[in-house]
This record gives sequence, C-alpha cells and structure tokens, in this order.
Amino acid sequence: MIKLNFSKLDGLVPAIVQDYQTGEVLMLAFMNEKAWQKTLETGLAHYYSRTRQTLWQKGSSSGHVQRVKEIYVDCDNDTVLLKVGQVGRAACHTGYRSCFYRRVEGETLVVVGEKVFDPEEVYGK
Amino acid sequence: MIKLNFSKLDGLVPAIVQDYQTGEVLMLAFMNEKAWQKTLETGLAHYYSRTRQTLWQKGSSSGHVQRVKEIYVDCDNDTVLLKVGQVGRAACHTGYRSCFYRRVEGETLVVVGEKVFDPEEVYGK
Repeated sequence: MIKLNFSKLDGLVPAIVQDYQTGEVLMLAFMNEKAWQKTLETGLAHYYSRTRQTLWQKGSSSGHVQRVKEIYVDCDNDTVLLKVGQVGRAACHTGYRSCFYRRVEGETLVVVGEKVFDPEEVYGK
Repeated sequence: MIKLNFSKLDGLVPAIVQDYQTGEVLMLAFMNEKAWQKTLETGLAHYYSRTRQTLWQKGSSSGHVQRVKEIYVDCDNDTVLLKVGQVGRAACHTGYRSCFYRRVEGETLVVVGEKVFDPEEVYGK
C-alpha cells in the first residue's frame, strides 16, 4: 500500500474530491489510514468523519457512492486527490452537486451551484 | 468579511487551489483568519505555513503568485476553493505545475505531471 504521511493532522490526510469527467471539485474530506486502505481495496471512496469519529463509506446512507477512477498524491505525501464518478450526481448532503455551491461576491455568498436532490427525500426529516 | 469556521483545525481552514482556466487542482494549503483577510483584500493568495508558523504570500520568493479569480465556500464554512491564475505556470515548489503530479498505479506512484521549472534556478541550491 502506498504510504502517506498521517502525522501532520493527528492521523488524517485531506482528500480533495473531483469529478473525473468535468473536473468540478465536489468536496473535501479526511482519511485516516483505514479509510485510505479501504478506498484502495474497494475502489469506493471511504473517509473518516471527524464529528462522528468513525470510518465512513461515502454514500452508505444516501446511495451516492463515489467510484474512484484515479488517485493522485501530493509532493509532501500528506494530501490526496481523488478523481471520482459520483453516483446520484450529488456529493453534498445539502442536495447540491458540489459542497462548493456558494461563491464569494463582495461581502456576501451567492448560491451558484446546482441542486440535484431534496435532502429530506434522501435522508428523511 | 465573509465569516469562516476556523475552529475545526486549530484556527485554520483548508484551501483547495484550482486553475481557473483548466480546472486542474494545483495544490492544497491552509489559511488562518489573517491569510483569509489578506487574500480577500489583495486578490492574491495568502496562506498560513504550518511548518514555518507564519503568514505567507504564495509566490513571494518564487514570483509565482496566484491571482484569485473566484472564491467558493463549502456547505460547512470550513473549507474554501480558490480559482486562480497561476503566474509562472507552476504551483509546486518542486517545479511541477501541480503538487499532485504523481498518480497511484497499484503499489507505486508514477510521475504524470508536467515539470515547468527547475527549483534550483528559482530558489537557489
């Protein structure tokens, strides 16, 4: 298994997630060593949830899994870039395609992203 | 100034840096509140160096500054995405265009990125 440097962020590395077809950045998540291992083994994106303090397969409750097409490692071995096929078209739990659906315009955030599902229908109320 | 949540990573937020024309992910860096403020004020990317523990304007020694074209904020207000014009064509101190110049192929990392400068010529030996 390719070795990453998990020491800089208390056992985690950031993972940038990009749509492999459009290049759109979908989200940022964190991986611990187990999540990295599971991602390599299964070809499905796994992360570590800092709030729930647990390993997490992206899409396990929503069905919106991420099929990993390519993985890049940065110059310091402490960040990875995943190019994924996003099942269900949305990476964000808010229902937007990308977590980065708001753009800074002066002093405000303007919603510019595309909403592709209703969170209540997917996760319940 | 747009408020971000700096509390999750000891006063920092990750900043994903993407070429605004090609969509290529160039690097990941971290910002403290001061770096965020300076980036908004100047339109040039500023970060916080965790190793040097100091505010840092990208390109201040190499001349390879990043002109910020658009900024996106994620759903949790704890990560930003900068779309930049990369002066000098290279974001990585190794001389590669992107820090993510190596791709995972099985058990090895294969260099696939484009090298656009010689670090010794830019930074000295």
